[in-house]
Amino acid sequence: MNIITDSIDLSTRGNCEIHNITGQAQEIVSSHGMTEGQLILFCPGSTGGLTTVEYEPGLLKDLPEFFEEIIPSNRRYHHDDTWHDGNGHSHVRATLIGPSLVVPFTEGRLTLGTWQQIIFIDFDNKARSRNIVAQVMGE
Amino acid sequence: MNIITDSIDLSTRGNCEIHNITGQAQEIVSSHGMTEGQLILFCPGSTGGLTTVEYEPGLLKDLPEFFEEIIPSNRRYHHDDTWHDGNGHSHVRATLIGPSLVVPFTEGRLTLGTWQQIIFIDFDNKARSRNIVAQVMGE
Amino acid sequence: MNIITDSIDLSTRGNCEIHNITGQAQEIVSSHGMTEGQLILFCPGSTGGLTTVEYEPGLLKDLPEFFEEIIPSNRRYHHDDTWHDGNGHSHVRATLIGPSLVVPFTEGRLTLGTWQQIIFIDFDNKARSRNIVAQVMGE
Repeated sequence: MNIITDSIDLSTRGNCEIHNITGQAQEIVSSHGMTEGQLILFCPGSTGGLTTVEYEPGLLKDLPEFFEEIIPSNRRYHHDDTWHDGNGHSHVRATLIGPSLVVPFTEGRLTLGTWQQIIFIDFDNKARSRNIVAQVMGE
Repeated sequence: MNIITDSIDLSTRGNCEIHNITGQAQEIVSSHGMTEGQLILFCPGSTGGLTTVEYEPGLLKDLPEFFEEIIPSNRRYHHDDTWHDGNGHSHVRATLIGPSLVVPFTEGRLTLGTWQQIIFIDFDNKARSRNIVAQVMGE
Repeated sequence: MNIITDSIDLSTRGNCEIHNITGQAQEIVSSHGMTEGQLILFCPGSTGGLTTVEYEPGLLKDLPEFFEEIIPSNRRYHHDDTWHDGNGHSHVRATLIGPSLVVPFTEGRLTLGTWQQIIFIDFDNKARSRNIVAQVMGE
């Protein structure tokens, strides 16, 4: 059993931008030569989320529309009383989706479905540099 | 430390059908003879979700009603522009709940509460055969 | 590789009370002397959730308001037909947020962002004693 803590660097534009990080995630598993185990992805930061989706143009519109509907960006949030940075909606959305995702791999391949991609959603209201922790545990 | 990648097979009817997979999950932990560690459940596919609930008839109605309210099935989604398969709502719901769940076990038992069951929700709009990845890591 | 299953005890008042358990979580990692690995937090019980947030007074109001809006406490739930305990909303909220959270650590520190804290949200409608499972896996 080995543990290796690696990372995925991203430059995002924020505002619900959705990044397909499947290729980088698989590359991390492959590069460390493990065949059986799990990949733990974690976003250090409270305005980003990790989950999966079929990464196609329609859903890349549906998801931001969904978040805008249930957690609107143009509403006043108490978070603004603290920081006045206008990203209360970003925090609530990120808390809802969660900062971590665990994906098993077997025979060296992440066990994703054919039409399923790992995504990072940057909910912040400005461009960000992100460093997603990618820890491989296995053999 | 050992890693064993097993699976749970399900036949679902889709449309927010909720499956209690607690028995199968515990059986996988028990059958591999480990006493301390974690079970990672993962749905390969972008229209299914894993979480826990008290599996009783009332909540089996409340949950689908909740999803219908915040992500309606009878609305037009951009996803349909790509595939015309009418399951845009299925994808958004699955992305929200997430495809993976990690449950620790100790003394050979999953650390679930007395009234807490592991569920797979099939959000797709048709019957599906599902193969949930169930990876045991521990000793 | 070692696995140690520990726990975090909490007394909560329920009703969407948000507990910052970052200090206890880091203390568990530190006390077992591991430097590289992951911490798995799991709530045994179907009315509590684990996620992260910037733990500041504004968001501590925004989050309960958000849950009240999308899963109101004053609505009738089918769950009441079973138990008559008035906490149907607690269950639906907990299922949405999920009972588990995995956080990697490296050089003995959880890989959290500077403004990111681990929180337990008690969605139940009464005071509770909670015993959060905290399992450390690593070396």
